[in-house]
Amino acid sequence: MKLQGTMRINEAGHLEIGGVDTLDLVKEFGTPLWVLDERAFRENCRKLKEAFASAGDSQVIYASKALCTMATCILVKEEGLGLDVVSGGELHTALAVDFPVEKIYFHGNNKTPEEIEMAVKNRVGIIVVDNFYEMELLNRICQREGREQRIILRISPGIEAHTHEYIKTGQIDSKFGFTLPNGQALEAVKRLSDYPSLIYTGLHCHIGSQIFEMESFAHTADVMMAFVAQIREETGLVTTELNLGGGFGIYYYEGDEPVPPEAWVQAVMPCVKEKAAEFGVPVPRVVVEPGRAIVGPAGTTLYTVGSYKDIPGIRKYIAVDGGMGDNPRPALYGSKYEAMLANKANQPPEETVSVAGKCCESGDMLLWDVKLPRVEPGDILAVSATGAYNYAMSMNYNRIPRPAMVLVGNGQADLILKRETYDDLIRNDVVPARLR
Amino acid sequence: MKLQGTMRINEAGHLEIGGVDTLDLVKEFGTPLWVLDERAFRENCRKLKEAFASAGDSQVIYASKALCTMATCILVKEEGLGLDVVSGGELHTALAVDFPVEKIYFHGNNKTPEEIEMAVKNRVGIIVVDNFYEMELLNRICQREGREQRIILRISPGIEAHTHEYIKTGQIDSKFGFTLPNGQALEAVKRLSDYPSLIYTGLHCHIGSQIFEMESFAHTADVMMAFVAQIREETGLVTTELNLGGGFGIYYYEGDEPVPPEAWVQAVMPCVKEKAAEFGVPVPRVVVEPGRAIVGPAGTTLYTVGSYKDIPGIRKYIAVDGGMGDNPRPALYGSKYEAMLANKANQPPEETVSVAGKCCESGDMLLWDVKLPRVEPGDILAVSATGAYNYAMSMNYNRIPRPAMVLVGNGQADLILKRETYDDLIRNDVVPARLR
Repeated sequence: MKLQGTMRINEAGHLEIGGVDTLDLVKEFGTPLWVLDERAFRENCRKLKEAFASAGDSQVIYASKALCTMATCILVKEEGLGLDVVSGGELHTALAVDFPVEKIYFHGNNKTPEEIEMAVKNRVGIIVVDNFYEMELLNRICQREGREQRIILRISPGIEAHTHEYIKTGQIDSKFGFTLPNGQALEAVKRLSDYPSLIYTGLHCHIGSQIFEMESFAHTADVMMAFVAQIREETGLVTTELNLGGGFGIYYYEGDEPVPPEAWVQAVMPCVKEKAAEFGVPVPRVVVEPGRAIVGPAGTTLYTVGSYKDIPGIRKYIAVDGGMGDNPRPALYGSKYEAMLANKANQPPEETVSVAGKCCESGDMLLWDVKLPRVEPGDILAVSATGAYNYAMSMNYNRIPRPAMVLVGNGQADLILKRETYDDLIRNDVVPARLR
Repeated sequence: MKLQGTMRINEAGHLEIGGVDTLDLVKEFGTPLWVLDERAFRENCRKLKEAFASAGDSQVIYASKALCTMATCILVKEEGLGLDVVSGGELHTALAVDFPVEKIYFHGNNKTPEEIEMAVKNRVGIIVVDNFYEMELLNRICQREGREQRIILRISPGIEAHTHEYIKTGQIDSKFGFTLPNGQALEAVKRLSDYPSLIYTGLHCHIGSQIFEMESFAHTADVMMAFVAQIREETGLVTTELNLGGGFGIYYYEGDEPVPPEAWVQAVMPCVKEKAAEFGVPVPRVVVEPGRAIVGPAGTTLYTVGSYKDIPGIRKYIAVDGGMGDNPRPALYGSKYEAMLANKANQPPEETVSVAGKCCESGDMLLWDVKLPRVEPGDILAVSATGAYNYAMSMNYNRIPRPAMVLVGNGQADLILKRETYDDLIRNDVVPARLR
């Protein structure tokens, strides 16, 4: 397992994160446990922010769908980033920690009227308008509330990034945004004149996730700037913000080759400036929305090894006390992860095992064919790069309680998410009178 | 959409379930809403129970992982079925409604020591022992608690049912159970003599889910009975229970051709008797564990249509106020469902649309290419056969609250699961002092 962030092997031969021995974390908080590396999280924020800032007018906003808790919203606030929320629930979380509303972007292909009203009433900075229906709905709500609302339009630019089918979002046949190649996007900009409460600020696009080829970003910036110029020419509207989405790839597994933030910056910032000059339009502020790139490598999951099953000549299974409930990505996307034994961190690999989760489902397999020291029940398995889309997509399948999460840094560990209890699982259950 | 259970189109041209107009449900409980058809649930229980009972000594137990709430546990109790639980959380739910513990089966490939202790202390009827490690652990806990425990052994019989990769569980390369073809299963039975607290009762196997070919079940019964005979011969142990698992297929979508419960009964019961006679062993009680077959067709999800997006020549998307959060099966397995407009139930199809969920994820698509009357925002979309593995696998991705569930029957609707609130979403969030 590649050691990321503040991970190191300490003198006891244990995995340490944020200056805390993971074995101590297990003793105090139990397993499964999500561990968030505060310095890694903050540094990922800073590096991205500084890299973009050094190249021009820019704003980095954290895509909270990757991991949204009150604590992470505070970290993002303290690091001076903006926040991308995609639901009333994420907005509620941000509001609960007094996140500066002017730096909140509200996304989504089907915001409900209640969510839009919540966003407008709370003076969210930017609403990313996804479709014609929403444009109409948002304008109506703004009029009713007597508010004007800054918006950007989500554009589906018709670009395919090289990535997994489920996480490609830029192609034409997409549920998201106004399609660029067929003229719907331009039509959307023109129709804005019918909606006086909507203040056109700019454009948004997102071409996919876990992208390593920076040319995809550069090409997207090109295409979007050409559209910026067309908008200026045909409507006179000035695009002051160009939001190029997220998708910056991280290291999960051997073969993933992430590039430094500067490469992302270099792929888009000069291109936007050049195209602005070429087309004679003002240089828009460039906004990017990393989520995974900030929180993904900062997260580690600790599990306790329980049962094992050796099928000679076929496979050795070991099972942990979590699985697809706390990390549905292997089942959903076939995602690969790396792992190590946190309590045998300096021991050489001795056997190849596959790691099963505890759900009553064959598909609940966390890792295939991972090399580990001799594994025994009670060992602590650490799986890296689980910060993004693990808690976010977690479920109570099999009515298994969701894990706790701790923030570690400077030798200190703080609970930021309580472990669910059995009573939490039934707290919304109601027994109607006639069944009592 | 095929009308199942008590569904009908009422005089107002609306979909009705359990004698309740679904539009009234929407008014009272909002959307998304899970609707559980009480009569369908009960009838599915009864039909299975009666069909097996008519053919010999048998026990039908409900696989609660398909849908486990306090209310469903009560329905199962009232119908006289046993209960299959796979975690402390499911057991906790069953105990909360005083489910008769002697009729509870505790499953799982990696029960934690705490879960085993909970099961033993609460005198759960049968623990399904999955592997050698668990055998040792369970015996130790039983000794400590001064209890004897009836067990059955989970066997991996090396049979592949024709079904989706993720839901095949009988093949040799499986995380579940003692492998039969390589002799591990027999070894397990023999080792029981080392564990005096474990009372051998029988065997369990489960060859997969959503199975339509009854020969798979018959073949499994054959293979298991041969093993029952071998056990008798080599150890003298009498197998009094043969649990053949679940997997009985239901109708989701055109092309699914479920057979009546009697076909399942006919596939296994005569075979077990014949083999018992042939091998000269007592006829074991046959246990089956339907989950989906009971609750799947009894569930319907109601959504409100919001935004839409027409990409001429390519596709028309409509979006609903739920999605992969309340039904991850399309994203996980590519599962197909049928749908109709509950408020336009007697109108002919006019257009072909694809139904997107509201998650900020391209993979959040509920249905592709479904024929519906002209769809407008505010329409109520009903998706059928969502009773199994929808609530069970639901998640808060994008921090979207999980829906409410109502039980409908005889014209009455009762809340059995409260809708999550925004405050529910942050109730386990903790802000450490140093971030305040």
